[in-house]
Amino acid sequence: MPELRQNFFTKEWVIIATERARRPEEMATHRAVQPVPAFVETCPFCPGNENKTPPEVMRVPGGNSWAVRVIPNKFAALSSELQPTRSLQHLRRRVDGFGFHEVIIDSPDHSRYMGLLSDEHVGSILTVYRERYNALSLDRRVNHITIFKNHGTDAGASLQHPHSQLIATPVIPSQVRHRLHEALRHYDDVGECMFCHMVEREVEDQTRIVLKGEHFVAMEVFAAPTPFATHIFPLRHMSSFGEITDLEIADLARVLRTLLAKIYVGLENPDLNFTVRSGPTEYNGARHFHWYVSVIPRLTRVAGFELGSGMFINTVLPEAAAEFLRKVSAEKVKGAGA
Amino acid sequence: MPELRQNFFTKEWVIIATERARRPEEMATHRAVQPVPAFVETCPFCPGNENKTPPEVMRVPGGNSWAVRVIPNKFAALSSELQPTRSLQHLRRRVDGFGFHEVIIDSPDHSRYMGLLSDEHVGSILTVYRERYNALSLDRRVNHITIFKNHGTDAGASLQHPHSQLIATPVIPSQVRHRLHEALRHYDDVGECMFCHMVEREVEDQTRIVLKGEHFVAMEVFAAPTPFATHIFPLRHMSSFGEITDLEIADLARVLRTLLAKIYVGLENPDLNFTVRSGPTEYNGARHFHWYVSVIPRLTRVAGFELGSGMFINTVLPEAAAEFLRKVSAEKVKGAGA
Repeated sequence: MPELRQNFFTKEWVIIATERARRPEEMATHRAVQPVPAFVETCPFCPGNENKTPPEVMRVPGGNSWAVRVIPNKFAALSSELQPTRSLQHLRRRVDGFGFHEVIIDSPDHSRYMGLLSDEHVGSILTVYRERYNALSLDRRVNHITIFKNHGTDAGASLQHPHSQLIATPVIPSQVRHRLHEALRHYDDVGECMFCHMVEREVEDQTRIVLKGEHFVAMEVFAAPTPFATHIFPLRHMSSFGEITDLEIADLARVLRTLLAKIYVGLENPDLNFTVRSGPTEYNGARHFHWYVSVIPRLTRVAGFELGSGMFINTVLPEAAAEFLRKVSAEKVKGAGA
Repeated sequence: MPELRQNFFTKEWVIIATERARRPEEMATHRAVQPVPAFVETCPFCPGNENKTPPEVMRVPGGNSWAVRVIPNKFAALSSELQPTRSLQHLRRRVDGFGFHEVIIDSPDHSRYMGLLSDEHVGSILTVYRERYNALSLDRRVNHITIFKNHGTDAGASLQHPHSQLIATPVIPSQVRHRLHEALRHYDDVGECMFCHMVEREVEDQTRIVLKGEHFVAMEVFAAPTPFATHIFPLRHMSSFGEITDLEIADLARVLRTLLAKIYVGLENPDLNFTVRSGPTEYNGARHFHWYVSVIPRLTRVAGFELGSGMFINTVLPEAAAEFLRKVSAEKVKGAGA
């Protein structure tokens, strides 16, 4: 029987289409493993080619030279040289394209997708995320920061060398505004963070939990818009990613890395995005919002219904996806290429 | 210089990334024309195979048998046999999967994409849209109806034979709710329909207009999230697609068909979606909302930034896209295959 489910913090409806239902394992890409070299001479992100990128913003030392590097995006969507000047003409509102667009090179190894790195190395990357997040949050012209990863061409990656990105905007995206609004309404009604409440219930319920660490829990989304859409929530209330502690980073590294490895093995390295969904920079300490990570394997195509209504049709039951991922061993990836 | 633009009726921000700017003609698919046969024996939508589809909902007679057919979707996302019973458990809200999911077969010809049909035939299809829209609107369990087309696999089409679809849901999508809310706020503030106001200004301004008929105007979107995202607005105020008259249908058929043909020729048959964005069925006659058609060529990939923030990065200036489409002749498609 098909059903509609509502995401309780976005209020978006999703159709869980059981008439078209597919078993989780049917979603695997079945694509041949293509060996990826650890070093590519022409790759601007490989070691020795540091002069092919814009001047470095920061680096984590390691090995012979560096473990993680941050550089400005050479084809930045926004420019830090501009000011966020606003104008309005006949309902047409615009802002000069001020902002920051940075690239975090995950490691010197061209072949090491994040799910295949060590937990410690992923911890270094997350520490860099936090450092850049907090540094850019100090700029009062910045209103919101999105950290994200594109893995594979269907997920929008244009360079193969594993990397993450950060875009700081002078506006708060309307999607974020809507979520804040719903969260605030719940806080006003019930006097609690709706995310904290939901996470507690989900952990009790168990059916959608993929794995749980000491400080973080990864779960399939009750009203998942697409197959295997997974959220990782901090168990402690935090509205901003910048508030994460070193101990928490170590736990998130393990949970995120294990989840990515499970998806890599179980679904055969699908293209994938993940994104850190933090409140706006001015919300540090807010009681009603709670940051989290969304992991979104790109296994399906968005069609006209989704574009026209904003509603998605999901053919994989989230509970079945969770059960599937719980059973996949993340150990199998040892030694595999990107 | 990059800029951020805000869509005035969704309040969504878009980055117009001039550093990465591409000329409109660079967006053409450059794919080889693959001849498509007019008849495919195994196609369930081709004439003679009517028994391979679920029982017909309606047909427009024509030629030897029919010109347009409507059938229930064999793999329907929602079921008309259920009731929209709601339940709520620990913030998890769900509704039994009641709804209608219909397929409109555009024509008996397997090769005739809508941009390649005659204006008159497109008028017949639009008349069928209206008939089904109004018939399903009478069902009080239906709250919203989305009509859409998927053209090409990247746009989510699973069958090649040109067809459109209609999904009637027992809920109002939250995306639609947000737009209604913004439109109502404008109406309360200014006492006018914000869409009527915007269309008038755009027609005066000319820079984003692609073509104008007697009753409809096609324009590039000021804050277009993706290259060549185009809206077709009725010049007369109407909140619901069901209100369209026969005269208006004839004009919309010409404007929509010409726009699709221009995109087909100018961008070399890109995968594409279009969708009729109508108010909820209960909004017939509402003064603050205005229906329109969105035409969305699928020329780019959605990446992690878009998923994480809801903001899009568009590399084609909407004004340049409009100028490009104005110049493309829609006459060249005569006799071409799908």
